[in-house]
Amino acid sequence: MDLLVRNGWIPDRGGCDLKVVAGRIAAIGPGLEAPPEVPRIDAGGMAIMPGLVNGHTHAAMTLFRGFGDDLPLDTLLRDRLWPVEARMDEESVYWGTRLACLEMIRSGTLVFWDMYWHFHGMARAVEEMGLRCALGVPMIDVAGPEQGRWCREEAIRLHEESSRYSERIHLTVTPHAIYSVSLENLEWVAGFAAERGVAVQLHLAETRREVTDSLERTGLRPAFLLDRVGLLHPRVLLAHGVHLDAEELDLIAARGATLVTNPVSNMKLAVGGVFPYSAAQRRGIPLALGTDGPATNNGLDLFQDMKILALLQKQAQADPTLLPAAECWRLATGRMAPLLGGSGRVEVGERADFLLIDREAPELCPGHDFISDLVYAASGQVVDTAVVAGRVLMRHRVIAGEAEIRREAAAQARRLCR
Amino acid sequence: MDLLVRNGWIPDRGGCDLKVVAGRIAAIGPGLEAPPEVPRIDAGGMAIMPGLVNGHTHAAMTLFRGFGDDLPLDTLLRDRLWPVEARMDEESVYWGTRLACLEMIRSGTLVFWDMYWHFHGMARAVEEMGLRCALGVPMIDVAGPEQGRWCREEAIRLHEESSRYSERIHLTVTPHAIYSVSLENLEWVAGFAAERGVAVQLHLAETRREVTDSLERTGLRPAFLLDRVGLLHPRVLLAHGVHLDAEELDLIAARGATLVTNPVSNMKLAVGGVFPYSAAQRRGIPLALGTDGPATNNGLDLFQDMKILALLQKQAQADPTLLPAAECWRLATGRMAPLLGGSGRVEVGERADFLLIDREAPELCPGHDFISDLVYAASGQVVDTAVVAGRVLMRHRVIAGEAEIRREAAAQARRLCR
Repeated sequence: MDLLVRNGWIPDRGGCDLKVVAGRIAAIGPGLEAPPEVPRIDAGGMAIMPGLVNGHTHAAMTLFRGFGDDLPLDTLLRDRLWPVEARMDEESVYWGTRLACLEMIRSGTLVFWDMYWHFHGMARAVEEMGLRCALGVPMIDVAGPEQGRWCREEAIRLHEESSRYSERIHLTVTPHAIYSVSLENLEWVAGFAAERGVAVQLHLAETRREVTDSLERTGLRPAFLLDRVGLLHPRVLLAHGVHLDAEELDLIAARGATLVTNPVSNMKLAVGGVFPYSAAQRRGIPLALGTDGPATNNGLDLFQDMKILALLQKQAQADPTLLPAAECWRLATGRMAPLLGGSGRVEVGERADFLLIDREAPELCPGHDFISDLVYAASGQVVDTAVVAGRVLMRHRVIAGEAEIRREAAAQARRLCR
Repeated sequence: MDLLVRNGWIPDRGGCDLKVVAGRIAAIGPGLEAPPEVPRIDAGGMAIMPGLVNGHTHAAMTLFRGFGDDLPLDTLLRDRLWPVEARMDEESVYWGTRLACLEMIRSGTLVFWDMYWHFHGMARAVEEMGLRCALGVPMIDVAGPEQGRWCREEAIRLHEESSRYSERIHLTVTPHAIYSVSLENLEWVAGFAAERGVAVQLHLAETRREVTDSLERTGLRPAFLLDRVGLLHPRVLLAHGVHLDAEELDLIAARGATLVTNPVSNMKLAVGGVFPYSAAQRRGIPLALGTDGPATNNGLDLFQDMKILALLQKQAQADPTLLPAAECWRLATGRMAPLLGGSGRVEVGERADFLLIDREAPELCPGHDFISDLVYAASGQVVDTAVVAGRVLMRHRVIAGEAEIRREAAAQARRLCR
């Protein structure tokens, strides 16, 4: 789409207009013009900033927000989530994902990577809400070889069907974890992903038990096991990575896989460790930030999560200079993880994905350092307008269909959790 | 003031009206009436909830938000804050405090405990903004006996002058810390506070160095030193308390002093420890939550800080069941620390200090557990209306004078940090 944004402001550049042609930023500068049929918005002096990138979530689980707090992970899964998840269908996933998209847009997230069931429910929701998303087709075979075969067939079928969606929606394949997928099926995923050219997402080293189980079962730590089955390369996203050791980080760096840290979820579930951010960053591993699903966070506002990540890393390593605001902002906007597909910058030639941020929010005053204010003082409420590929998804915090989404999502949640 | 709130909702009670007479809640129930001259607001189904209580801040330091991030505490103080603070006057403190009040009202804080200079600047700001506040008159004598004498005279003078303000504003006396006030002046403060019946606030055991210095200088750990000078009793508020040991917690519990934890500030400055929440809570010590000043947080939104406190405690103690949502809410609303003067509940006979919270915020959907949603999913933006003593301070997120406050605070910040 085309769009003309008048009267914006960009850090280190100052006041400017921005012109979008065919979904990309075509010009930035003063006094830009466009044909009369091109939609226009007046930024009113607001900051034009890149959108945030959520590297790991399970969006449809908004339906289970607050349904199992303050519990150990295994109790949460066994007693709360698994029984209700078994009742989910494409429709509930659709409404849960739309609710998540609503929250993400309202808090400035324009790209997210998701793992969940009912691909078409997710894809329809994201398509309508206008975000960019890498959606996972799950592989899990804890129930036996039948389940694995079904997942393989689903992956093949859905990969063909995924062509019906726009270029904003990518199919990925998502083996759940090394402890819930057999080695054969992990190898199948590696081959399938290579053949179809799709990315792979999985949970890795979230808990200490995953590491000890892997060592017991295979003699290998999780990253080395992944490498053996062909699942450690630049098209692989690894979520969590709390319990990776130095040799695993060396290997991940050498293979070029991306690590996504989820500080809020890890802290809430008390997974018994802190993501080795500095060690990973020093090695040049691509890094991103994720919320994890709303059953374990319970929000989707990355403004809050980027602050929490910086605080946690400073605290855990007893170093207040670690992960300074500017680096945190680069991380949250996807600049440190090219695989994820966030543009991360507002520049000519980039995709026209951006936010208008209300510089008059009291928490951004007096404004000694705009990026610090965004990282340490703001929440998602500073986002006034959200644009993806030149299409305005939110204007003055209003998103089309909000009331219907809340109503239908709540109805689905009541049905599932009855 | 009198006020009639129609069409509200209270957890465990459901839909109801609420009537305020002379600043107190006079009735809660269906179909309440009031004389025609009484102001009315339609809550539109929103939740009527108690306001939050910020147990420790330095409000005027909004002027220094983002002025010295990602630095060790001593560098921050020496190279950034002290030089600019030396230029502050009553006018800059007034505007910085008004900006802080603006943010606090917008994020649901109705009571706060503050330590800063220029008492009348703070008091005028709070008086006009309508909050409740305990304001500290500082005692510090690192510059020598002259400074101590000046602080004593100031305390006496300001205590007399403080009677010009409403009952919402309390003077307290605030010796900065045991390492920055001599034993003689700590004893003087104890006597002054007892004689005038005012509360005392001070920083305690924020850093490990404070403990080792205290042991070296006096042979006593910080809490025992305080007890010796008569500053450990039910009218004393202790901020931080990160490095308190078991014997000190026993002593604090026995004396009835209140501890205020400031998780965000402690993490951001990496003070090398985590507040011993469980140990304090088990002993029945009165507990509250604080943001600390905006130079080290950098926000004032307690909704974010209560989530971070719960996350930090779970993570640090590797126990996801610790500090569950309901307890976190009680803590943040002042229910666990009577000294602080938050009502903490919406009940007949209580002060008419309350919030209207927009239950239609997407992050509160689907609503399995309203308190969990407030603690783990919300930010301050869910607060629609704020009322103190029956006076409406914010309605539909609009606060009188906002633009002027931002403009004047920014001008003061520019002047000070030039």
